[in-house]
Amino acid sequence: MAGNAEIDKARAGDVRALARLLSLVEDESPRIRSVIEDLLPQTGRARVIGLTGAPGAGKSTVTGALLTAFRAAGHRVAVLAVDPSSPFTGGALLGDRIRMQEHATDEGVYIRSMASRGHLGGLAASTPQAVRVLDAAGFELIIIETVGVGQAEVAIASLADSVVVLLAPGMGDAVQAAKAGILEVADLFVVNKADKPDAQQVVRDVRNMVALADRAEGDWKPPIISTTATRSEGIGELTERLDQHWSWLNSTGELKRRRQARAREELTALAFAALRARLAASRLDELAGQVADGTLDPFAAADELLDGAGQRGA
Amino acid sequence: MAGNAEIDKARAGDVRALARLLSLVEDESPRIRSVIEDLLPQTGRARVIGLTGAPGAGKSTVTGALLTAFRAAGHRVAVLAVDPSSPFTGGALLGDRIRMQEHATDEGVYIRSMASRGHLGGLAASTPQAVRVLDAAGFELIIIETVGVGQAEVAIASLADSVVVLLAPGMGDAVQAAKAGILEVADLFVVNKADKPDAQQVVRDVRNMVALADRAEGDWKPPIISTTATRSEGIGELTERLDQHWSWLNSTGELKRRRQARAREELTALAFAALRARLAASRLDELAGQVADGTLDPFAAADELLDGAGQRGA
Repeated sequence: MAGNAEIDKARAGDVRALARLLSLVEDESPRIRSVIEDLLPQTGRARVIGLTGAPGAGKSTVTGALLTAFRAAGHRVAVLAVDPSSPFTGGALLGDRIRMQEHATDEGVYIRSMASRGHLGGLAASTPQAVRVLDAAGFELIIIETVGVGQAEVAIASLADSVVVLLAPGMGDAVQAAKAGILEVADLFVVNKADKPDAQQVVRDVRNMVALADRAEGDWKPPIISTTATRSEGIGELTERLDQHWSWLNSTGELKRRRQARAREELTALAFAALRARLAASRLDELAGQVADGTLDPFAAADELLDGAGQRGA
Repeated sequence: MAGNAEIDKARAGDVRALARLLSLVEDESPRIRSVIEDLLPQTGRARVIGLTGAPGAGKSTVTGALLTAFRAAGHRVAVLAVDPSSPFTGGALLGDRIRMQEHATDEGVYIRSMASRGHLGGLAASTPQAVRVLDAAGFELIIIETVGVGQAEVAIASLADSVVVLLAPGMGDAVQAAKAGILEVADLFVVNKADKPDAQQVVRDVRNMVALADRAEGDWKPPIISTTATRSEGIGELTERLDQHWSWLNSTGELKRRRQARAREELTALAFAALRARLAASRLDELAGQVADGTLDPFAAADELLDGAGQRGA
């Protein structure tokens, strides 16, 4: 109920109500559960874009240029900046404030950082809830921006309908991206800083990698878009390609398939979080003592824990 | 049974048998379960030292100098080099081969890299198994070396009896370490590259941070040791302090408490891994479909999953 009132305020453009709801998500508050239950009927409309890439490739600039372009097209846009590698939002928040100034009086734009609470997998459970809150608050486009190119970043960016991978010349670039498993999840490649001398080489490298990938008839072939985001060059082509991808997702049924795959990831992460909570009230200490003494084998102990945790309140 | 024969070979100094057992651990093979069950009675003797620090602080050099010092004292020593941020061992393995050359004909030394299998928390479950294998194979000292200063690295290094945190001048050092939560887990600080001009400033910074920490009567106060590992300077003091910490752990009962806390972490990670396996055979797809449609709230779905997973084979 409380959730509904706050959501109504957030839908009406009350930024502080929205911030409070997202803080519940970030803090993994028990209250978020009833909030999500309440707002569920108002979700499912937003289109979610993931954007990831190495630090220094120009993610903030590209996100900013996309924001401006989507606003010009009349959409309400939210940016969720997620940093899976740090439990601290300090730096990102400062960056947000600077970025927000440009849109300070625009109710159609919202930018928010979200940090990890320190336990593995936490963001995989909470990022989808933040997306639901923004979706229910009426944002038609949500950009999930992640810092870095590690596995955790790729996993978070993959919680999107369209995944944009940002590269730039001189970043160690393509090979690093390949290592992090980024090529498998990319729907669009953006080679930023296209005015730099080596940019064409990066485009060629990516083109070769895309050409080598296994792809069936009718599969989406990731386009490679060159941008100079500081001058908004190439951003028109990027939004056009994003729209094409969105049409493709809808016309092929791929959107439904992809959202179901995302829900699988989310449910797995939420089941882990629920297990973590139940273990705290379980025989964990007693079994850990026996494993530490070497009198019980750890796999048998883990099975016993899980069997016990299956009964709620056990 | 198969486990026993391999363990007997490994104890007798058969490096290839040891490598096969550790590969079972790294591959998260179902066979590892019976191996651990078989070798459990032969574990509990090894002393485990964790070593972590920023890239470039000189971890390999310090580990190498420690190795030489412990060998001179007559111990069998194993190094487990763990990289939680990458699923690829390529680089680390090359480094191992170079490091191994010095000890190539010495059966009392074993160096091995272990990489992540790509899912969150996997190493928290498998590192303790690797330690058990090395322990049962007769290594009296096991050094867990992790690359980097992120949360995952700190978590892995904390699976040790004594945690050594390595700093060096010009590394962004102390503040970074504080951010990653390293200060809370450090039993010993090593300021390496003590011959560099700024080293004394790093020592002062760390001393101030140690002084500020809450500490009860009888608690261990982390010493700060200056080393120039390339010339083995300060390594004698480091091993002496490590021995003091080991005596303190044993005389205060802290060793038992700490190993029990470690077993808690291990059991939680193993329960997660078991849950992951059971979810694959559960109603996950069906429930994910309903969540994706917005007809079922994700928290209720996660509870249902966990309840179902509690019954083995359900």
